[in-house]
Amino acid sequence: MRVTLKDIADEAGVSMMTVSNVVNGKRARVSPETIERIQRIVAERGYVPSASARSLAAKSSKLIGLLVPAADEDSLMISPHNVAIVGLIERELRKGGYHLLLRGISQPAEVAEALQSWSLDGAVLLGFLDEEIDRLTARTVGKVSLLAIDSYSANPLTTGVRSDDHTGALLAARHLLALGHREIVFAGPAFSDVGVVHQRYQGFRAAYAEAGLTWIERIVTVETTTHGSGRDLGLRLMQSHPEATAVFATADILAIGIMEGLAEAGCSVPGDVSVLGFDDLDLSRYVTPKLTTIAQDIPQKAAIAVRLLLAAVERREHPADPITLGVRLITRDSTAAPR
Amino acid sequence: MRVTLKDIADEAGVSMMTVSNVVNGKRARVSPETIERIQRIVAERGYVPSASARSLAAKSSKLIGLLVPAADEDSLMISPHNVAIVGLIERELRKGGYHLLLRGISQPAEVAEALQSWSLDGAVLLGFLDEEIDRLTARTVGKVSLLAIDSYSANPLTTGVRSDDHTGALLAARHLLALGHREIVFAGPAFSDVGVVHQRYQGFRAAYAEAGLTWIERIVTVETTTHGSGRDLGLRLMQSHPEATAVFATADILAIGIMEGLAEAGCSVPGDVSVLGFDDLDLSRYVTPKLTTIAQDIPQKAAIAVRLLLAAVERREHPADPITLGVRLITRDSTAAPR
Repeated sequence: MRVTLKDIADEAGVSMMTVSNVVNGKRARVSPETIERIQRIVAERGYVPSASARSLAAKSSKLIGLLVPAADEDSLMISPHNVAIVGLIERELRKGGYHLLLRGISQPAEVAEALQSWSLDGAVLLGFLDEEIDRLTARTVGKVSLLAIDSYSANPLTTGVRSDDHTGALLAARHLLALGHREIVFAGPAFSDVGVVHQRYQGFRAAYAEAGLTWIERIVTVETTTHGSGRDLGLRLMQSHPEATAVFATADILAIGIMEGLAEAGCSVPGDVSVLGFDDLDLSRYVTPKLTTIAQDIPQKAAIAVRLLLAAVERREHPADPITLGVRLITRDSTAAPR
Repeated sequence: MRVTLKDIADEAGVSMMTVSNVVNGKRARVSPETIERIQRIVAERGYVPSASARSLAAKSSKLIGLLVPAADEDSLMISPHNVAIVGLIERELRKGGYHLLLRGISQPAEVAEALQSWSLDGAVLLGFLDEEIDRLTARTVGKVSLLAIDSYSANPLTTGVRSDDHTGALLAARHLLALGHREIVFAGPAFSDVGVVHQRYQGFRAAYAEAGLTWIERIVTVETTTHGSGRDLGLRLMQSHPEATAVFATADILAIGIMEGLAEAGCSVPGDVSVLGFDDLDLSRYVTPKLTTIAQDIPQKAAIAVRLLLAAVERREHPADPITLGVRLITRDSTAAPR
């Protein structure tokens, strides 16, 4: 016979509401002893609250989707930045009593399907283009509260958390200019006139402008922001840009690949070419030379994302205004004055 | 008015079963055009199949849990090995039409709760101790098919996929012995008489035995398998083990930290001390010197894990026997003959 909530409540000597609260992760007002007793009885008796019963009881699925673009054959974990975010979002949701449905999205139409098919309370979009977020409609989104990370979309159905990308690139270019570099390559994915990379491009140019200098535009784009693309770029940089004395890469993983490619091509970093990244991944301290970079506060980004999203979920209202987090320059060993 | 499955079927001119199949990810026998038409109508009409309706229709939730131990304040993504596995498991589940519920487990009792609370079809346990897996009972597990990664537990309720840890460590020690090292430190987390690290310890000793040598046991244990623990260990290694000419670390991330600590302590790798890791993370090629290591086939581990688990889910039977994957030595720049 199927074990019911009432069976558990009777055995534990508590109300059904208390059992329901514990099972649904609302434990703030229940003593640790009672939680432990209920959990033990639930385990012993093999009580299985159904997903639908949970949803009905809580008027909430306690399930948050994390959607990440990924080609059919790709892992979601290609970008070390995304890896860090995924782990930290899980932690923050767990602290809040929510669970994470992690889903790779191989084509934009799947966003609607993903949002609608699991009674999600909310969802985080990670790594989507602003154009894709702009296109989301009330019908697609339904009642799901939505937050996009690193988005500059003005779509009122979503809110966002992002780093101050403009200032980050401004600090990066200022640092290189102050060292005496003028011929600096900007390396990153192709970008449109909106979004993270565009912001960084604008910030980079702004540093030249404030120094009264003109940047002779040297942009190198990569298909994917990976170590491999960076290495390819580094290997051929002295052919494509023999005048360059520095490279600003829009991501640490790209910068680290570039350093490897340059080294293989017989170029010393920072002796011949300085390299500067963006993210401050742990990895940037493990490589030689240690990477000068722009630090984003990734744990704070994840924590604020979850806090904003859950506030919207719990108040059943549209999410609050986007939040922009500060960044700072971390000077390490991959940048120096040009020869 | 709530849009029903029938509304979608009528508008698409297909049966309700076809709509249900598409919505539930069973698309093998449906043409791409029909799938696209149904998805478009679903999106336009704002059809929201409830989780319970889905479960009832499919007799399956299409939801697979991925449970990873994590202290309250920890991200799940501390271990680069786990990061790679999580991303690849999501990819494989997605290909199979399943979705991933990612959940950090801060105390063993939560495993039962996690398995029971979401109508999971199956679950993958990643990073659990064999003792914890041994303790799972039919009551805890219920009808959930279960697979543990890197487990040597004989619990018949689970199956497992693991690398050949014994051979891996044997190859590592053979390589160091062949170079002429005798005083080799074994560095890893504390271990009992079962499990991954124990297997590696046994394999390591076996290399000495087959060479007719006796290993003077030099074990250094770390609290956590992280870069920081490795660095601490590297910093004090020449004090704690002045006679050591080589270190075998049970994980690349640990080995990379050890190399950094040794370098900071003024010790050259491999000039003064050789360092050898285990995993063959991408990272092991990015550091200087590039790390000699034992390669596990992590993508294959993830693919086989999902294949075994979904076979058990779909046949509603106990999982098949565990599978052990081959490993190989990758010689790079962090090992050399002792001075």
